[in-house]
Amino acid sequence: MSVTATASNTTAPTQFLPAGNERYAYRRFGSGSARPLLCLQHFTGTLDNWDPAVTDPLASEREVILFDNAGVGRSTGTVPQTIGGMAAHALAFLDGLGLDSCDVLGFSLGGMVAQQMALERPSIFRRMILVGTAPRGGDDIMHLEKPSLARPLGDPTLEGYAVLQKIFFAPTSSSQAAGGAFIERLLQRKADLDTPSGPGVAAAQIAAFREWEQPHGTRFAELAGIRQPTLVGNGVHDDMIPVSNSYRLIENLPNAMLLVYPDSGHGSLFQFHESFTRQAAAFLASDSPFAPY
Amino acid sequence: MSVTATASNTTAPTQFLPAGNERYAYRRFGSGSARPLLCLQHFTGTLDNWDPAVTDPLASEREVILFDNAGVGRSTGTVPQTIGGMAAHALAFLDGLGLDSCDVLGFSLGGMVAQQMALERPSIFRRMILVGTAPRGGDDIMHLEKPSLARPLGDPTLEGYAVLQKIFFAPTSSSQAAGGAFIERLLQRKADLDTPSGPGVAAAQIAAFREWEQPHGTRFAELAGIRQPTLVGNGVHDDMIPVSNSYRLIENLPNAMLLVYPDSGHGSLFQFHESFTRQAAAFLASDSPFAPY
Repeated sequence: MSVTATASNTTAPTQFLPAGNERYAYRRFGSGSARPLLCLQHFTGTLDNWDPAVTDPLASEREVILFDNAGVGRSTGTVPQTIGGMAAHALAFLDGLGLDSCDVLGFSLGGMVAQQMALERPSIFRRMILVGTAPRGGDDIMHLEKPSLARPLGDPTLEGYAVLQKIFFAPTSSSQAAGGAFIERLLQRKADLDTPSGPGVAAAQIAAFREWEQPHGTRFAELAGIRQPTLVGNGVHDDMIPVSNSYRLIENLPNAMLLVYPDSGHGSLFQFHESFTRQAAAFLASDSPFAPY
Repeated sequence: MSVTATASNTTAPTQFLPAGNERYAYRRFGSGSARPLLCLQHFTGTLDNWDPAVTDPLASEREVILFDNAGVGRSTGTVPQTIGGMAAHALAFLDGLGLDSCDVLGFSLGGMVAQQMALERPSIFRRMILVGTAPRGGDDIMHLEKPSLARPLGDPTLEGYAVLQKIFFAPTSSSQAAGGAFIERLLQRKADLDTPSGPGVAAAQIAAFREWEQPHGTRFAELAGIRQPTLVGNGVHDDMIPVSNSYRLIENLPNAMLLVYPDSGHGSLFQFHESFTRQAAAFLASDSPFAPY
């Protein structure tokens, strides 16, 4: 019973791992025979931004590891201004844990970091889940100056998580209601909270997005080097990282499935958490060398 | 045991239903408490072109109904030169069977007919699966004059189903091997075979594709009228009806999920039949008003 009671991001204690030059904040919970699942977080997100409705069902078959990259939450160091810099920290963290190989769920910014890690060290991931993210050279990545994003981000009447509800969910009553439920779930964690990200974190991560928009050589060619079975997911109405980026991912990754959700934005995995965790669990349960599950 | 033994497109007897002015050929097999699944077939396909590896697993929970549209296989009548004409025949067939409502799997041409039926009679389908198909106004629909298709279609060394293997599967060894297995499965049916389609069937269906490429009013706007939970599927390397058409479908259908398979062409559902039937069965088993499953 104690395992069940602690296998939630609502209650899991934050831990700290010295590795390389930093001390990384993380949470590790759940159990099971499957490979651990590293979860890489979105723009300005901390450990507290992981929806327990997504992490907890996945933690019933495996350990789930949530990670604050350098300079985020309570991890020491400086937020890198490149995805490559963030990938180096994430690899150092896994080395510090002694994990040679794991599965990964990379959401948004975290999906870019996961791709970079797979390119730099192909053995690090067995199966990859990339949600609401983009390949290097992708289009319209996190342009917060767009009116649809600038408006809620600059609205003084929206406080705290209310902004997240606006920008992570589609402007329909059903999606906004799902956004409200998501926020309620995040607020269930009351103690041992992470340090929220300030403008410095945001600025460095935006710089990293701008650098990631620049192709290296032939656009998308490097994706041929990511051979892992990969599940790509997206909401169809994603204003932060449009779904076309997920199309480009699966058109160029050699071994990727695509799953797109209706009536949803950037936070499709939170809106449709029951479907998403069912699909993700089935995908991760497969031992096939091919992505289809 | 007798139910199990006959619940296959390899052995199901062909039946004939007089309805309207025609006599329609069909096969109906399987059993279970779920709603019957109408299967609408691809360009020049007959009852014999349904892969038992796709139809039979789905027939374990429901009746599967395969249907020859007018002028195809052993159905009487003239092949319509519009999708609307084909939809009228399919509706007359369901009326003749006394089916007020069913689920549908529309593949390629059959997916267009399914969309048209749903627009004309919204109550006819509960849940829809559309694979390798396109919305009205879609792009590059079955242009057999394209070199990648004209070459195998005009190759005198390719006989019978060998052409299908070339054009339904991607030009990789893994996809072509899956195509070979698909052909083997089709050839398991030895008796009570359908009449193969000749050039007349092909010409009329090509005319229907050309008409379907013409938008009615604002491109894709009519898809807002299809409210059914819909699962859209495609192979990422589909030369016959490119995957971009599936993108346009789920961007404009209000309640649709997208599933795209790697390393596959038009016949993705046959190549990944285990995954496809698992996904399709889970989708059809849902009673949610929303597509995600």
